[in-house]
Amino acid sequence: MKIVRFRRPSGGPPGYGRIEGDQVVPLAGDPFSAPADGGPPVPLDAVTLLAPCRPTKIAAVGLNYRDHAEELGMALPDEPLLFLKPPSAVIGPGAPIVIPPESRRVDHEAELAVVIGRRARRVPPEEAGAYILGYTCLNDVTARDLQHRDVQFTRAKGFDTFCPLGPHIETDLDPSDLAVECRVNGERRQASRTRHLIHAVPELVAFISGIMTLEPGDVIATGTPSGIGPISPGDRVAVRVEGIGTLENPVAAPAAP
Amino acid sequence: MKIVRFRRPSGGPPGYGRIEGDQVVPLAGDPFSAPADGGPPVPLDAVTLLAPCRPTKIAAVGLNYRDHAEELGMALPDEPLLFLKPPSAVIGPGAPIVIPPESRRVDHEAELAVVIGRRARRVPPEEAGAYILGYTCLNDVTARDLQHRDVQFTRAKGFDTFCPLGPHIETDLDPSDLAVECRVNGERRQASRTRHLIHAVPELVAFISGIMTLEPGDVIATGTPSGIGPISPGDRVAVRVEGIGTLENPVAAPAAP
Repeated sequence: MKIVRFRRPSGGPPGYGRIEGDQVVPLAGDPFSAPADGGPPVPLDAVTLLAPCRPTKIAAVGLNYRDHAEELGMALPDEPLLFLKPPSAVIGPGAPIVIPPESRRVDHEAELAVVIGRRARRVPPEEAGAYILGYTCLNDVTARDLQHRDVQFTRAKGFDTFCPLGPHIETDLDPSDLAVECRVNGERRQASRTRHLIHAVPELVAFISGIMTLEPGDVIATGTPSGIGPISPGDRVAVRVEGIGTLENPVAAPAAP
Repeated sequence: MKIVRFRRPSGGPPGYGRIEGDQVVPLAGDPFSAPADGGPPVPLDAVTLLAPCRPTKIAAVGLNYRDHAEELGMALPDEPLLFLKPPSAVIGPGAPIVIPPESRRVDHEAELAVVIGRRARRVPPEEAGAYILGYTCLNDVTARDLQHRDVQFTRAKGFDTFCPLGPHIETDLDPSDLAVECRVNGERRQASRTRHLIHAVPELVAFISGIMTLEPGDVIATGTPSGIGPISPGDRVAVRVEGIGTLENPVAAPAAP
């Protein structure tokens, strides 16, 4: 199933739905309980897609691709390098990534994202699948200059609009060997496969849920492969994960103060 | 006004209230809109106090006390050193801090916490007060060994139960020169005053809201003074902030797996 959150052309509160062909079938309630169809379909091209879930936290891991670590000549980390992005950074497909005036170098980072389906606390890797609702695309936008200056990643990765998420949650997917790609203005900048993840999805669910209880709708960003690079106002950034689809966002300058 | 979140002895969903003498007067709705009294008072000693707000994020700053920085012989930071604690770490007064099996050294960190009252985005310091609902006590519990090992603070400060918060939000308070104290089993371990903050409350609201939009109920942890030290199962940790009150929590061993 392909789960979306969307706003109708007529306005009103956002709701969850599932994509069927070129239609969105509204869901009654949320997709974390047993979702049932909840009304007449709406044409997909008439709705505004939002980020497909509303995480209470985005738990992300750094340096989790073998090819990227090797490219940088860095030792493979024994344990996932964990950081948090705030929920206020989340935007949906098509919404602009706004370059903050505080940074002179903002980079794209294409990632596979895991969406948690039910509360997870110290879940062993072999049971992780039962706690996952599905997968989506994530762009871990990063102010590289501030990341180097601050040591802590919080500011560099925490600006509003720095967590594009979507376009939908694919619930029927094996995450173990998917192509992950980033294009800027149509030009390929990042390309790898999730089989190169140092810590695979089940290990990440186990590691993170052993620290912090994961709630339905929480997101795990699994790390980015080599090829990170800058984006500027006017660019269009597309994160594609095989079996899911493409998350595309324009890049904008900050509003005048 | 002293705002609490509480659970009635009869059970049912938690609600907001205000303390008046030895009673809790329930509030209709939440304290972020115009709160009105919403029912007959309940004796304070009959209710269970919860964390007094439900943050979407806890933005915290490290190394923000002049005496602590001087004690460590470290240069005063030009900008606040920002990190996040996840909402899953929040517990209320009286709830146990659980020592995770992954750490051999867990420390208390007594702090003044700011509770945001309305959405704040790039707020200048001189307007910060209008975005603050009030102040409470916070214990930024930290697995010191993991903090040193990981570099990123996320795991060390992100375990479940590592963010005691409360006992109530004091809305009528000048935060510029308050005593902040931590006692373990009645013995004083930390004692300073908020006038020693390197980055004072208005600057923190301005700095953080310039990065991430702050929502009603979000919390800013303002940093801890010198005197941090370990806590162990069986201890009782009390964070006291002048003009607010005391947040006391027992320390517990992890449940057997």
